[in-house]
This record gives sequence, structure tokens and C-alpha cells, in this order.
Amino acid sequence: MRPEPVHCGAMTVTSNLDLDMGVLLADTEAEILRVVRDHDASTAGVYEMIRYHLGLDSSDNARGKRIRPLLGLLAYASIAGDHRAALPGAAAVELGHNFSLVHDDIEDGDTERRHRATLWTIHGVPQAINTGDLIFSLSRIALHRLTDLGFSDAKVLRLMRLYDETCVLLCEGQYIDIASSASDAPMTVDLYFDMIGRKTAALISASIEAGALLATDDEDVIAGYRRFGWALGLAFQLNDDLLGIWGQERQTGKVPTDVVRHKKTLPVLYAFEHATPADRDRLAVLYTAGDPASTDVTEIVAILERSGAREFTRAEAIRHRDEALAELDALTVVGADSREQLRGIIIGVISA
Amino acid sequence: MRPEPVHCGAMTVTSNLDLDMGVLLADTEAEILRVVRDHDASTAGVYEMIRYHLGLDSSDNARGKRIRPLLGLLAYASIAGDHRAALPGAAAVELGHNFSLVHDDIEDGDTERRHRATLWTIHGVPQAINTGDLIFSLSRIALHRLTDLGFSDAKVLRLMRLYDETCVLLCEGQYIDIASSASDAPMTVDLYFDMIGRKTAALISASIEAGALLATDDEDVIAGYRRFGWALGLAFQLNDDLLGIWGQERQTGKVPTDVVRHKKTLPVLYAFEHATPADRDRLAVLYTAGDPASTDVTEIVAILERSGAREFTRAEAIRHRDEALAELDALTVVGADSREQLRGIIIGVISA
Repeated sequence: MRPEPVHCGAMTVTSNLDLDMGVLLADTEAEILRVVRDHDASTAGVYEMIRYHLGLDSSDNARGKRIRPLLGLLAYASIAGDHRAALPGAAAVELGHNFSLVHDDIEDGDTERRHRATLWTIHGVPQAINTGDLIFSLSRIALHRLTDLGFSDAKVLRLMRLYDETCVLLCEGQYIDIASSASDAPMTVDLYFDMIGRKTAALISASIEAGALLATDDEDVIAGYRRFGWALGLAFQLNDDLLGIWGQERQTGKVPTDVVRHKKTLPVLYAFEHATPADRDRLAVLYTAGDPASTDVTEIVAILERSGAREFTRAEAIRHRDEALAELDALTVVGADSREQLRGIIIGVISA
Repeated sequence: MRPEPVHCGAMTVTSNLDLDMGVLLADTEAEILRVVRDHDASTAGVYEMIRYHLGLDSSDNARGKRIRPLLGLLAYASIAGDHRAALPGAAAVELGHNFSLVHDDIEDGDTERRHRATLWTIHGVPQAINTGDLIFSLSRIALHRLTDLGFSDAKVLRLMRLYDETCVLLCEGQYIDIASSASDAPMTVDLYFDMIGRKTAALISASIEAGALLATDDEDVIAGYRRFGWALGLAFQLNDDLLGIWGQERQTGKVPTDVVRHKKTLPVLYAFEHATPADRDRLAVLYTAGDPASTDVTEIVAILERSGAREFTRAEAIRHRDEALAELDALTVVGADSREQLRGIIIGVISA
């Protein structure tokens, strides 16, 4: 049974594309389950917890979008013609992403993810921290299967170095995020770009670079895929920022999630730096109060719009999307079909 | 300035040994600081947090015992004659051990470690979880320097696989530990040995096996060091269990820490399975009450002693110590000096 076409963030990947996304997804999940299997009665429980978090237990409507592994497999296939040999890398980045989600849910106090209770709310913080650590460890176990598939030791080691350096960047980005909420180092527009580069762009870029790295030895090509992935990762994040405030406009009665939660995403930071003095003061008051009433939300959004924050963020998202497209066009190694497929994903990203 | 001779658990490593422990320690810490250095203003704070946790900030009386890296370096030097090429491995196991300590402190709610406030009490749980994750990531960055030191890619990859599989075991052991405290799966003597194998013996064994692995291609020798390390790791843990209850006998007025905290270490589990029915019932009552009064502590210790728990645990510790010694004696590759040095550490372990 082949899964339905997947929704990758804001865009739907339709079935008229060259590589069947459903196959990539099913293969990725089978590869993940190779390492997330229990082998002893005494530890079976923690593997069940991991499969639950990944949406790979009996319920199968709680899966993530798997955008990182899919991009990595597409990058690999765009050079090598087939995706399968890159599956251990795809499993690793998805597990790596999910370890960070399990820990983020604790750090942010989030009680739901993908419409289900988060791990820490069911099993407690200690067990959830440790389960995240195990997912992190298993992400590296996944990578070792590249050796079994015939990749050279030098290639596998280089991929591991890329992965390890990316994990460092992820944690550094998360540090900046938490520190700025605690106001030890208040967030600015510049610091925000520093943070999302580490927190979001690094892993998306590494997923794509890893795909290229496994498929070719050409350093120029690898560097091109990396730049492509980095620009795409930033565009993704900025698009998310727009959706977090203006994404619900189409759905009547829904409130802008990021505003309700007082998240300081790019539009808010921009307004704090560029709104009129009166609006800035008012925004500061509204953003330090408890849960904003719905009138406050309306007022906050109005301030953001007056300050030009929405236009600025959208322009930044489009600038990075266009940079990603230009990098993609410059990659002569990409076949015409794969290029159109990747191009379709990128164009679909900027929806807000 | 050379550090003083170090205290490794219960034993003091004196300066008449062949390899100077102070040099091994100073070299290990310098190697750790190679990867725990800040490189950007925006992330400098998290590296400060790591150095604080490691006792590698300005205060230098809060360092760990560094027993895992020291054993790894001794194992390597016992074959290769010098310790220096194995330093990246030593840094990795110490960082790996410390990532787990940072998370354990949150999971156990411990407010002090090495007489200083734990990270989460100073910076909050979210920041401490993330700092642990960064230490974990950096432990792997440390390993990559083995490539720069000239080890073959095959060797480095094999070491990484050993390290990754060990990290999986660590998390599995921690899962068993937390699950049993939450009573989903009550702890038994058998399950306890399963747990400490994963939680304690695995990393000590891997540290020693890694030292051998870097020094030789002889599979029999590598396997011998692994068995030696595993037996030593179990002996370490059982010795700790004894010290946690009877270690303070020499220090008047001190209470048995593990009893006060209701920790179910081997002596307690043994008593729950082998004490008289009346003693078992009484122990169950005493172990479910809140903080035990000092009379309760005396009563608990009396029950443990009556059940034969102390003798059983000591006999088990000595059995594993002797197994470690026998494995060491069987290692013909070890030079006489190194053998005596390792032997001295092992004999020193069983002090309780």
C-alpha cells in the first residue's frame, strides 16, 4: 500500500512529478524502522515511545512532513538517478530532526505536536529527555549502514563530520533562542538571522549537501547544493514566520498562533526596530502582558502591518527563495526532470 | 603547572607509577578544551556553561575524576607505549559521560554536583537540556581529530560505531532506571544487572576497548580489553553501591546517601528478594515513606545487613574485580609496567 502524496509544509507535492514522493516517503520510513526496533524486553518500551513520537506506531495520521529526508533523497537522485543508496542519510537527518523536536517540546512546554500529546506529557520530563538522547544516538547508527551499502570509509566519515558539525550548529541556534527569551541577550533582527541560520537552514542545507556528497566527488557541485539548501532553509523559516501570523487569515475565527504565544519571529523583531516610537512602546506593553485578549492580538497585528514588517518579511522570504532558484539553475549536473521537481517544491514554499 | 595526583574514585593514583596520571589528565583536559571553545559572540555563553559543568572554568576544584579517559589512555599506552595519539578518544568519552551527567542531573532533580550548583539550577531546564545536547555533539567532533592524527578512515569509523552503539546502550540503561522508579516495571536483581551493564559497564568497557582498538588490529586483543573493561565497569558500580550505603561509616555523623534518597541499588534489591517476609514488608513501608528519619535509616541498614545484602554485593564486586584481573593477566600484549599500573587501579577500586 503506497502512501498518499505528502504535504510538504505549505505545498502539496503532486503525483505528476518524476520521482514518486510516496515511494521516497515509504522507503525513508522503512529505513528509520530498521534502527528504531526493539531487541530486548527490558528496553522495548523506549522504542515504542520513539515510534509513537515519529507517528510510526499503529496510528498513522501523526507523521511529520519528512521534508529534510525528501530533499536529501531528491538531491541525491538528481545526480545519481535513483534515491535508494541515500536512504541511511535520509533516516539520519529525520531522526536528528526528531531528537531536537522531542527536546524542544520540553523546552517550550508544548503539550501537543501533530495533534497528539507530546512525549513528556505522557511519560514525564526525565523519560522524554532520555528518549530524545536515544533518538540522537540512533540517528548515527542509521548512518553506519552507508558502509554496508558500499560507500567508501572516506565518504561516510565526511558525511558524519558534516552531520556532527550540523548538530553543533543546531544546538548553538537553540541556545541563542532560549537565551533571548530569557532576555539575557535580547533578540534583534541581525541575531535572528544568525539564529535561524543555525537552527533551521543548517539542517536543511546539510540534508541536501549530504545527498550531493554521496552522489559525487565534484567539490563545486557539492558546494552549489549546500548554498542552494541554505537559501532554501532560510526561505522556509521566513515563510513559517509569515504563516505563524498571517497564515490563518483564510480560516475564519482562527488566531495568529505566534502572536498569541508572544513568539519573537522576524515580523515582530522588525516592528520593534522600525515601528513609530508610540507603536514600539505599545508593542512592548502588549508583548509583556500575559495571554493577550483577542483585541490585543488585532492591535498587535495592526502595529506589525503599519511598521512594514509583513512586507519586509515577505521580501526577505522571496529574496532567499530566488537565491535558491538561482543556485539550482546554476547546477548543470541536475537533469531537467529533477530540476523541475526541486523547482516545484521551492516555488510551493513561499505561500504566505 | 602540573596537576596534583588524581583521586580516581576510592583510590589515589600515586606518582610512582610508570605513566604520570597528572600528565594524562592535563593532556585530556587540553584536548577537551580544543573542542569546547567559543568562536562567536552570539554563542559564547553556552561554551562557558559547558566549561563550568566540566570544571574547566576559572575554579578548578570541581573537576570530575576523568576515570574513563584515563583508563582509555592507559589501555592504548599499554600496547602503543605512549598515550598521546589516543587523546581525541579520551576527550570524546569524557564529553559523552558529561553530556549524560548534565541530563541525569535534570532527570534526577539533583541540585549539586561536585559541590557546585548543577547547570539546570542556574540556567533553567530548557537551557540545560540543550547544553547537554551540545556536549553530546561536541563529543563526536572530538573524535574527528583522530583522522588528523593519521588514523585510517576504517579505524576511525569503527571507533565511531563502537561509540555510537555505546551511547545507545547508555540511553537504554537510563530508560530502565527511570521506568523502574516510576514503577511501570519494578526493578529486580536481574534487571539491575541488565541496567548497570548498559548504564555503567558499557562506557567504561568502550573506553578501554577504544584504547586497544586504536593501538592494534589484533581482534583477540581488542576483545580481551573489552571483557576486561566490562568486568571492571561492573565492579566499579557495585563498589559505588556499597559506598552509597556503608561508605560513610568512617565519617562520624554522616548518613548513607543512597538510603536517604531511597535509591534501589543492589543491596536494597537483594534485601527485597531475600530478607525475611517481616523484614521485606517493613522495608517496603520504609522505602515508600517520605524522607526517612535517622532512626529509619538505621533500621533500613539493619534490615539490609540481616538479609546478607552487604555480603552478597561485596562478593559480587570482588567476583567482577577478579574477573577483570584475570582478563588483564591473560593479555600478553600488556607490558609489565602497564599491567602493574592497571592492576593498581583495579585493586584500588574495591574499597568498600
